[in-house]
Amino acid sequence: MQNALDRLTHLLGKLPGLGPRSARRVVLHLLKKKESLFLPLIEAMHDTAAMVKTCSHCGNLSVMDPCEICTDARRDGAVLCVVEDVADLWALERSHVFRGRYHVLGGTLSALDGIRPEDLRLASLLQRVACENVQEVILALGATLEGQTTAHYIAEKLQAEGIAITRLAHGLPVGGELDYMDDGTLKAAFQARK
Amino acid sequence: MQNALDRLTHLLGKLPGLGPRSARRVVLHLLKKKESLFLPLIEAMHDTAAMVKTCSHCGNLSVMDPCEICTDARRDGAVLCVVEDVADLWALERSHVFRGRYHVLGGTLSALDGIRPEDLRLASLLQRVACENVQEVILALGATLEGQTTAHYIAEKLQAEGIAITRLAHGLPVGGELDYMDDGTLKAAFQARK
Repeated sequence: MQNALDRLTHLLGKLPGLGPRSARRVVLHLLKKKESLFLPLIEAMHDTAAMVKTCSHCGNLSVMDPCEICTDARRDGAVLCVVEDVADLWALERSHVFRGRYHVLGGTLSALDGIRPEDLRLASLLQRVACENVQEVILALGATLEGQTTAHYIAEKLQAEGIAITRLAHGLPVGGELDYMDDGTLKAAFQARK
Repeated sequence: MQNALDRLTHLLGKLPGLGPRSARRVVLHLLKKKESLFLPLIEAMHDTAAMVKTCSHCGNLSVMDPCEICTDARRDGAVLCVVEDVADLWALERSHVFRGRYHVLGGTLSALDGIRPEDLRLASLLQRVACENVQEVILALGATLEGQTTAHYIAEKLQAEGIAITRLAHGLPVGGELDYMDDGTLKAAFQARK
């Protein structure tokens, strides 16, 4: 192997889900499909690196700033969905369940990793709630210790605003089997039964 | 999601080992590590696409043609190792077991997939054996039906040359446990016991 190939294999091996072995497979696959895959992929990467930026308003990734969700007049500005990460925003968008606006925190509070309130997009969240006539804030954070701590922190900060603060329901995932669920999920699903 | 992001996610999802979900994770990871990973990766891909070509002599992938193995005077030109694919050549190089030269077929004969002798780098193999004073040809092809058919075909073609034709030994992989082995492997290992 040569320098260019070595370097490419090394960098591909750093991507999530790929290791040294699969990185080599990817390199060979790319070289085999140079016209149909390799060159278009380079172009798409180039475009993405050059054009995609973080929306200064909500924290989404987009070629526009503010992003197309923030500028879409058909979306309901009265409901603000707070998510941890852009991946969560994309997941909610794919589910077509929500037609309001988003606010991406960029992480969760974590004493262990030293992530404090000022490291997250929290000040701009409070400002948006104060200025944008928001009536409901949905705290769509993960059901982890950090996610719930962060949700609690935000709920406290927003208490004085007199708006509805909601969280996603806990329970069995749709299609989930009982005997694969952990105790916490079973307990939450039982307590929230209706 | 936008066009540039959509296109990149779509193309990444076509890579071996990645699907739509992991492609999205890769895109977000790249955008988070723009300076340290995304931009160097684009550069390495660009370099690879521009510089790496197939060695016209042996079929290896390299920035040089003929490649560094073909031009390395310290390697033994009397032993030629025939492999199916560049991945196999790389695997043998990593094991440091072989110091001769290679010939990459670019596939195996397959009636099912319609791969005939003229679709492989076979004519140049016969020519190399005839012209390069080769004394041994190692048929390092996979222990599959296609690999063994191809090895048999090549061995027949080379019979008249009066050179040694060898194949890799079959048996238990080092570290392999008996009860995980298929019948064919166990049989081969038994018959080749020493």
